[in-house]
Amino acid sequence: MKNLGYYNGKFGEIEEMQIPMCDRVCFFGDGVYDATYSRNYKIFTLDEHIDRFYNSADYLGIEIPMSKNELAALLNEMTQKMDTGENFVYWQATRGTGIRNHVFPTDGSKANIWITITPKDIVDTYKKVKLITMEDTRFLHCNIKTLNLLPAVMASEKAKQEGCDEVIFHRNGRVTECAHSNVHIIKNGTFITAPTDNLILPGIARRHLIKACKKLGIPVEEREYSIDDVFDADEILISSAGSLGLAAEELDKKSVGGKAPDLLKALQDEVQAEFIRETDI
Amino acid sequence: MKNLGYYNGKFGEIEEMQIPMCDRVCFFGDGVYDATYSRNYKIFTLDEHIDRFYNSADYLGIEIPMSKNELAALLNEMTQKMDTGENFVYWQATRGTGIRNHVFPTDGSKANIWITITPKDIVDTYKKVKLITMEDTRFLHCNIKTLNLLPAVMASEKAKQEGCDEVIFHRNGRVTECAHSNVHIIKNGTFITAPTDNLILPGIARRHLIKACKKLGIPVEEREYSIDDVFDADEILISSAGSLGLAAEELDKKSVGGKAPDLLKALQDEVQAEFIRETDI
Repeated sequence: MKNLGYYNGKFGEIEEMQIPMCDRVCFFGDGVYDATYSRNYKIFTLDEHIDRFYNSADYLGIEIPMSKNELAALLNEMTQKMDTGENFVYWQATRGTGIRNHVFPTDGSKANIWITITPKDIVDTYKKVKLITMEDTRFLHCNIKTLNLLPAVMASEKAKQEGCDEVIFHRNGRVTECAHSNVHIIKNGTFITAPTDNLILPGIARRHLIKACKKLGIPVEEREYSIDDVFDADEILISSAGSLGLAAEELDKKSVGGKAPDLLKALQDEVQAEFIRETDI
Repeated sequence: MKNLGYYNGKFGEIEEMQIPMCDRVCFFGDGVYDATYSRNYKIFTLDEHIDRFYNSADYLGIEIPMSKNELAALLNEMTQKMDTGENFVYWQATRGTGIRNHVFPTDGSKANIWITITPKDIVDTYKKVKLITMEDTRFLHCNIKTLNLLPAVMASEKAKQEGCDEVIFHRNGRVTECAHSNVHIIKNGTFITAPTDNLILPGIARRHLIKACKKLGIPVEEREYSIDDVFDADEILISSAGSLGLAAEELDKKSVGGKAPDLLKALQDEVQAEFIRETDI
């Protein structure tokens, strides 16, 4: 298949798939999602993403109507049907179906399961990115991977309009994360990243970067830091399921980073090697 | 019809309607809405709701692919087809259709127009309501009527679980609004309501309450006020398209209001009379 969609047991080409108008996603964005990538038909860090998906659902009282193993098997089976082994593997659960009403359904309507598999490679880990800064005006539940993503949409479009790749959000100067990535800095040989409170998503690529730091003996500090710290950093990295640890060369049109290239490369080599190793034939 | 749905030119019973999986509402909640009520097949304050709808869309760069007059004509035409003249008239626009991608579509994909008409009366204006308070953890764009409504869903469910009707949100004690209503207080003969900044929706029922105050010679103050002020108020009112001005009798299980019943009744009589007059046969 060139791409493959799934909705509650039905399969099809994504552009042709239809879903009920009364899925609660349509009125409230009432759902959670997660996503990762496959290479050679192997889905990278799938168990970690599925764990986080169930955690997101738990936070909102959405009961996923299948087990973690069943979901993993379904995602693997669908990936196998694709024309290429390199895919963006995306899934979401929405809180049931019914005539619009804010309160949860009481008629036993179960969560709906959605999957889309689309051909896509992860971004070149060694590509340099350009960033802009923006005030973080999102809600205070950014630790949950919900489908309420309008601020991320607006920020991503703004970055694109400015010829940039991502947006660093900050709350009154305190850096949180990016529109669809986490962000980290390297300063004086230390890897610094914001703590995973309710203002940032506990990124899985972030966790693997920290693991790589520990393996390489790079000190890690999980603490608040500011936009000024970012401008002053030796290196700035962004990470997401599709960006294992990309360094920034520009922030708000100013040159940044580039002051710890060896440490950066060692870290990138480590996360890149893990991805290759775990998705090898 | 017992109810009536519309999506981009297709009509049908709402529960039977299907929409494309790739409507951007499904992945991002990327859209805006508005809603009001009809009585005797006449839609109350339709022009004001349509104006606000286009304003919400403008804020987010969503271009509505029909004129205000065309939308009004469509809503009126659909309402005429209903079995009853008393309906909840709801419509939304979502930012086009396409494989999931945060940035806006570039293939000319137009906004999708959705409508649902369901039989429903406004709430009895003289009914007393019970409220709870909650920290307002929503995003900072509450002046826009978007489909990113998860916090409103969670708060509404919590109110229901507590046997209450609505939630008063506050940010560190400063009252903003309710999960799907505005909130106001009466103190020493003055009607006090929060200013329409980015933290609250500029409610149309709110505007009509203010108009009624002016007609009745009740002083109006648009200013910040606190949860303490609410507990201390002579009366507490909530308003929305379906609740023209309901008074609270309970807040967080404590008795509240009831100290300016004559002023309250005069105000309620005024907004109720306007609704009846404007929707008369």
